Amino acid sequence: MESNRPLILITNDDGIHARGITHLINTALKFGDVVAVAPDMPQSGKSSAITVNAPLTVSTHAPIGEARIYSVNGTPVDCVKLGIHAVLDRKPDLLLSGINHGSNAAVNNIYSGTMGAAMEGCLLGIPSIGYSLLDHSPDANFEPLTSFIEEITHKILCNGLPKGICLNVNFPSDCTPRGLKTVRAAKGRWTEEYADYTTPHGTPFYWLTGKFLNEEPGNTETDEYWLSQKYGTIVPIQPDQTASDRISEIAEILKR
Amino acid sequence: MESNRPLILITNDDGIHARGITHLINTALKFGDVVAVAPDMPQSGKSSAITVNAPLTVSTHAPIGEARIYSVNGTPVDCVKLGIHAVLDRKPDLLLSGINHGSNAAVNNIYSGTMGAAMEGCLLGIPSIGYSLLDHSPDANFEPLTSFIEEITHKILCNGLPKGICLNVNFPSDCTPRGLKTVRAAKGRWTEEYADYTTPHGTPFYWLTGKFLNEEPGNTETDEYWLSQKYGTIVPIQPDQTASDRISEIAEILKR
Repeated sequence: MESNRPLILITNDDGIHARGITHLINTALKFGDVVAVAPDMPQSGKSSAITVNAPLTVSTHAPIGEARIYSVNGTPVDCVKLGIHAVLDRKPDLLLSGINHGSNAAVNNIYSGTMGAAMEGCLLGIPSIGYSLLDHSPDANFEPLTSFIEEITHKILCNGLPKGICLNVNFPSDCTPRGLKTVRAAKGRWTEEYADYTTPHGTPFYWLTGKFLNEEPGNTETDEYWLSQKYGTIVPIQPDQTASDRISEIAEILKR
Repeated sequence: MESNRPLILITNDDGIHARGITHLINTALKFGDVVAVAPDMPQSGKSSAITVNAPLTVSTHAPIGEARIYSVNGTPVDCVKLGIHAVLDRKPDLLLSGINHGSNAAVNNIYSGTMGAAMEGCLLGIPSIGYSLLDHSPDANFEPLTSFIEEITHKILCNGLPKGICLNVNFPSDCTPRGLKTVRAAKGRWTEEYADYTTPHGTPFYWLTGKFLNEEPGNTETDEYWLSQKYGTIVPIQPDQTASDRISEIAEILKR
């Protein structure tokens, strides 16, 4: 059955059964034909990882409203690549990733599977947006975000995005956002990164944890600042990490 | 035993037993005290993935020359984080990742575990370099690269790197490089990405493959061009993916 409605591909990194992706699917159904292709299991922290040395399969799930739902035994980027190869019959008009249970603001963009998927869409020439809520809990309340996600999704469907740019959108938890701010990622780093344990047999082992240290807490140019003020934040992201304006400086350092 | 020599942390994504990391360790021993902390198994395509929901352990291996050798049951980024947390007693002066068996030029930077590790070092404030050879084979010949790796490693140890910048260095295969070029990543994308199969039970499955399509093959500003001319290439990489110069443009698109 042909459709003239926009085709929207949805994925995430918390897996096909997460509450956040269900909310995003239901929100996106107002704007077009929706197909979700998401990991069969949680894939937090998978960044832009791809499955190189194992076979991938696609499983079909019960529809959500009129949305077609599939899962893949791989990473968020695998879902985007394989969704386009094996599920969709044409290139999608929009890719939405999320809604992630947890922050992808500041440096978290680089570790985020949610943003890995959005950057993959961008590399494939699809306008792509990652949505995240600053609440890790499985039963996080996504309802207050609906009108903001509708607004952003509508604008990007109508206007598109510049080539090579996708969006990393984060929302504060436990409130209706006061508004939206288009800003840059705050500079900072993770500290106290591991909890230390010992096995019953005396061997040390480690579990990732950590606190994010914001290196510029009062800076109104940054996402972390506006999230702390209960605004939603939109950061334009470029998957191409070449520091184009530093090439001559680096060439100079290598000549010294 | 205290040492005044620089402390060099080495990792990779092909695993602690790969030929490329052994070559890099032997090369680095000329410049300082070397500690290698690398994945216990191949981790190609892991990007900046981190292990969030499983315990990590560190195993000790036989030394290579005077280098101390460890493995971790995780990703390249896990190796950097946990190496600093659990193995090293001070912050390293330099992080080297590789030598990767295979290209990390152009868009491959985003999927590369080799570069994931280098970017992690950069985020932690350590001058960091990823080295790759355009040869996937396990018995690739790294010998012709030695003097080039010595030159780059020496310069960066002496001069450092600007905050927030690391280096993605690639070498052509089967030759002594004609020289080094500091350039940007070529624009392009992967095509024909999956081989299609059917299980004995009639279920389709897929295996990642693909050809890289260089969108600007003759462009002398790019890494792919100079690699095709048998030069080694150095691309400055910024882990922070904010498109800082596009913020007002995106804000405008969202207002329309």
